[in-house]
Parts: sequence; C-alpha cells; structure tokens
Amino acid sequence: MAIPQKVKIVEVGPRDGLQNEKEQVPTALKIELVNRLSAAGFPNVETTSFVSPKWVPQMADAADVMAGIERRANTIYSVLTPNLRGFEAALAAAADEIVIFGAASEAFSQKNINCSIAESIERFAPVAHAAKENGLRLRGSVSCSLGCPYQGEVPVASVVDVVERFAALGCDEIDIADTIGVGTPKRTKEVFAAVTQVFPRERLSGHFHDTYGQALANIYAALQDGIAIFHASVAGLGGCPYAKGATGNVATEDVLYLMDGLGIETGVDLAQVVGIGDFISTSIGRPNVSRAGKALLAKARSDQPRCA
Amino acid sequence: MAIPQKVKIVEVGPRDGLQNEKEQVPTALKIELVNRLSAAGFPNVETTSFVSPKWVPQMADAADVMAGIERRANTIYSVLTPNLRGFEAALAAAADEIVIFGAASEAFSQKNINCSIAESIERFAPVAHAAKENGLRLRGSVSCSLGCPYQGEVPVASVVDVVERFAALGCDEIDIADTIGVGTPKRTKEVFAAVTQVFPRERLSGHFHDTYGQALANIYAALQDGIAIFHASVAGLGGCPYAKGATGNVATEDVLYLMDGLGIETGVDLAQVVGIGDFISTSIGRPNVSRAGKALLAKARSDQPRCA
Repeated sequence: MAIPQKVKIVEVGPRDGLQNEKEQVPTALKIELVNRLSAAGFPNVETTSFVSPKWVPQMADAADVMAGIERRANTIYSVLTPNLRGFEAALAAAADEIVIFGAASEAFSQKNINCSIAESIERFAPVAHAAKENGLRLRGSVSCSLGCPYQGEVPVASVVDVVERFAALGCDEIDIADTIGVGTPKRTKEVFAAVTQVFPRERLSGHFHDTYGQALANIYAALQDGIAIFHASVAGLGGCPYAKGATGNVATEDVLYLMDGLGIETGVDLAQVVGIGDFISTSIGRPNVSRAGKALLAKARSDQPRCA
Repeated sequence: MAIPQKVKIVEVGPRDGLQNEKEQVPTALKIELVNRLSAAGFPNVETTSFVSPKWVPQMADAADVMAGIERRANTIYSVLTPNLRGFEAALAAAADEIVIFGAASEAFSQKNINCSIAESIERFAPVAHAAKENGLRLRGSVSCSLGCPYQGEVPVASVVDVVERFAALGCDEIDIADTIGVGTPKRTKEVFAAVTQVFPRERLSGHFHDTYGQALANIYAALQDGIAIFHASVAGLGGCPYAKGATGNVATEDVLYLMDGLGIETGVDLAQVVGIGDFISTSIGRPNVSRAGKALLAKARSDQPRCA
C-alpha cells in the first residue's frame, strides 16, 4: 500500500499537552496558543476539556478558552467531555467535535475509573447520542491500545472490541492511542491490521507517545498501512504521568519534519510551528522536547554553518 | 523484503559520542565504559581514534584506552585512523578494525579538510593497504550521506561514488552516515537502494543521528530494505557539533528497544545498556538523552504504576 499523499495532523498540545501542568497556565496564554496553532494551518486543534475542575484543575477555564479564541473556518476545535454536563457546556461553547475516551485495558479501566471497559464506554452513550443529535462530530479515543502501565500487554482483540463499541456509538473518527509509548512498529501494524477490519481506515488515527523514542517509527509504520490522521503536541507538551522525567506526546515539529521529508501534504507550516513551540515552552518555563524544533531553533539562532 | 532476524549494533559512544566532550574524560572511565559495553554483548565497539591530539584532544589517550580494556572474544574493537602514523599506533594497540572516513559532500570535504572528496579518500589508500596487509578489518564511513551542513542536498550519486571508492580500497563494511540527522525514510530508502547496487547489502550499515528525531524511523525504513548493521551511542552521547543544544547520535537504548519490539536478535541486553547509559551520563555530568533509557530508569526508580 502506498503511503498517503495527504495527512491530517491533530494538534493536541492545548488539551493533552497542558492538562498535566502543575502551574495554572493563564487563560490568555492558552487562547494565544490555540490561535497561533490554527493560524499555522492545523485542520484540528484539541482545545480543552469540559471536565470537573476537581479532576483536572488546569482545564477549569474551558468555557473562557472557547469563548476567547478566534475561530478559523478550516479548523475543527475539539473538546473532551466525560458526561452530559460537560457536553452541555461544550455545546454552549460551540465546540465542533466531542471527544470521548475509553481504555483497551481492563486493568487500566478498573484502576482509573473503577469500572469495566464495557461499562466505561456505555456511560458515554448519552453524550454520543446528544452529540449526533446536535450535529457535532464525535471522536472516540482508545487509550492503552499498545500497552498498559498496569497489565502490560493489551490483547489486540480488546482494542478491536473498544473500536467496535465506539463505532456503535456513532464515532466519526477513532484514535488508536499508545498512551504510555511502549509500542513498536510490529505491534502498531498488528493493531491497525485488526482495527481496519471493523472501522474504515480513513477515519482511524494514530496517537503516539515518544516515551521510548518509538513514535516516529510507529507513525511511519502506520503510514505504510494507509493511516492518514496523526496526533501530535507542539514542543512535545505533556510528559508521561506514569514516569517522571520521561517523554510524553510525540512533538508536532518532529512529525511535520517527517511528513515534509516524505513529501506528504499536511497544510501546516513547520517553521511557524517551530516558533509556536518556542513561544509556549518559554512562556510556561518548560523545556522544548522537540528534536526538530530544537535543531531548527539552533539553526535560526546561529550564523555558523549548522545542522542543515 | 522481510526485515532481518538478526542485527549487529555497533556501539559508537566511546569514540563518536565522547570525542566532542569539552572536559577531558578520565582514561579509567573510558576503559570502564568500553568494558561494560562489551560485557553487555555488543559485537562491535568503536573504541577510540588514533588521531593527532591537536585535532581531537579528547582522544589523546587512545593507546592507554586500548591497553587498559579487557578484550572480550566476541567483540570487535574499532578505531579511527586518519593516516599511516595513526594506523601504526592502532596496529601496536591491537585494534581489530580500522575505520576510515570521507564525506559524500564536496562542500563538506573542502571546508573540513580543504581537498576534494576523491583526494580525501585517495589519502587513505596507504592505511587501507596496510590494514589489509596486516589482516585487520577495514570499515569506511560515508559522512553527510543524507545531507550536508554546507551544501544542503547531497546527490545520491555522490554517496554511491564514495561507496565505490571505499569498496575499491577493500573495505569490509561501509557506513551510510547521516552526520547531521536531516534524513527521513524516503531519502534513506533512495540512498540504500542506490548503494546496494554497488556494495553487498549485508556489509552496509546505517549510522543515524537523531537531530530532527528521525533516526528510528530511518532505521525502521532501512531494516525493511534488509540493512542489518546499525550504529548507536549509549545515552545518546555526542551532540551535534553544527547545532548547539541539538541531539546527535541516536541513543542505543532506543535502538535496542525498537529491535526487541520487532523481535530482532541483537545479542545485547537492553537492561544492562540502560544501566551503562545512566552510569556514563552521571559520571560525565551530561543529560541522558535516550528516551527509552529515561523511561526505563524512571520505571526502575518508582514503586508506582508507570510507563510499562
């Protein structure tokens, strides 16, 4: 199978990247981040979560962020909603896409939300129903698709099961998420080979973490299987909550550099994103963990001959 | 083509990784590093350079390092030798393999050693001849194979030309080196497709830098083309001399994690290498830039549920 000529990059930095920041990130800064990202051409920005501030204090300003951003016509603004209350707030905030989530690992589901996988997804039925009724896009995210911090190995059949459940709820798009970054290309291909049997390839996405440095190899493997939607976080925002000091979401700059090198069209301007990565890392005082970002920033700052 | 079942990992940390360290690394520490690496199972350790200390002061203790290490029967100890004087010293030190080097970029060759590519390689003829005459293995390293800090794009034909020149000198193994880490899988495949036309695939190696985060994707691409020798540097020792703060050699731990995940046999124990990466980074006061290394160290240090 030829690799896709066009790929959709979903920028998840403002939500997935920032949600674990201990220090409250000012709402104005979040708004500027989202605006800069949409201006750089991202077709989809995961913007915030409408979730109880008791759970995720960093996302307490969800409504203000959504009210403050400038809407770009070609950008889908996604938000996470764990329940109908969150959905109502998301609807009021005019979100374009509702994201629901479930783990492919029984142990993860039990430890995190104290219920089975099946129950956890059934709980989203009212949100899914409401989203479809209101004409909103619906996306389902399957966490722990390539491994679990509690049970280790996750059977491919469990991933397929969750994908089928999300499909039954009417999901327009489904994310195969390697939440803890343990996957390698072999497992990535096995999982995509299985889930493409039950859900259209063109509506599946890869959400990879770079915790073990494997994200770009996995993305390349998934591209070879025709997957054409990938998630990434500018500057690699968001660490791994399961390993202090370890890397989390794959950096958007690294993914864009790969796509550019492969001649794949994304509609996103790498140079602008490198600037955004520098801006947000500096603003929140966090190291920029994008390798391409750091190399291109070093190159821009130097008058000397340099890396490319 | 099926990916190889066995891969040879050439550990280059003691030479390529350490050579740019500003602070002199104690000879005893270098010896311990090499000993630990060979004990972890590496079939080949690039140990030091017999080069003028005026050029590379960090390698001034080459003879002492070679004299101090414990030789493991199944490990090849490689050394760089720029000239016959270096070769004689390497021979006296009982090196197993002599490494010679040349750039595929005319601009790089002119700027660095003030001569053409052809001249630069011709200068190695006496060393190559002496190596063969003394029954030593000979390896040629083609730098700037995927791009150059001065001229940017490097024609594939230039890489092929250097490979042919190295082959004519009798090289047993030839490295395709992405010295500045700018390559992506498309270019990687183009270059390997061309060089395998003129030199046996099983004696070609991939030497990738992770400056733009692409190294593992490139390695995966090269594996798919049957390349079965890869270079890596423990803890990602060695930065990019062309971009301060940017990443250099791909980290061995990340490469081993990939190989393990793909079910490829390397004979090297990842857990031991993670420990070596921690040891050398701590000893020389340098951040460990291996993602797999950091994640596995965090996991080992934590009692909490964690990344795998």
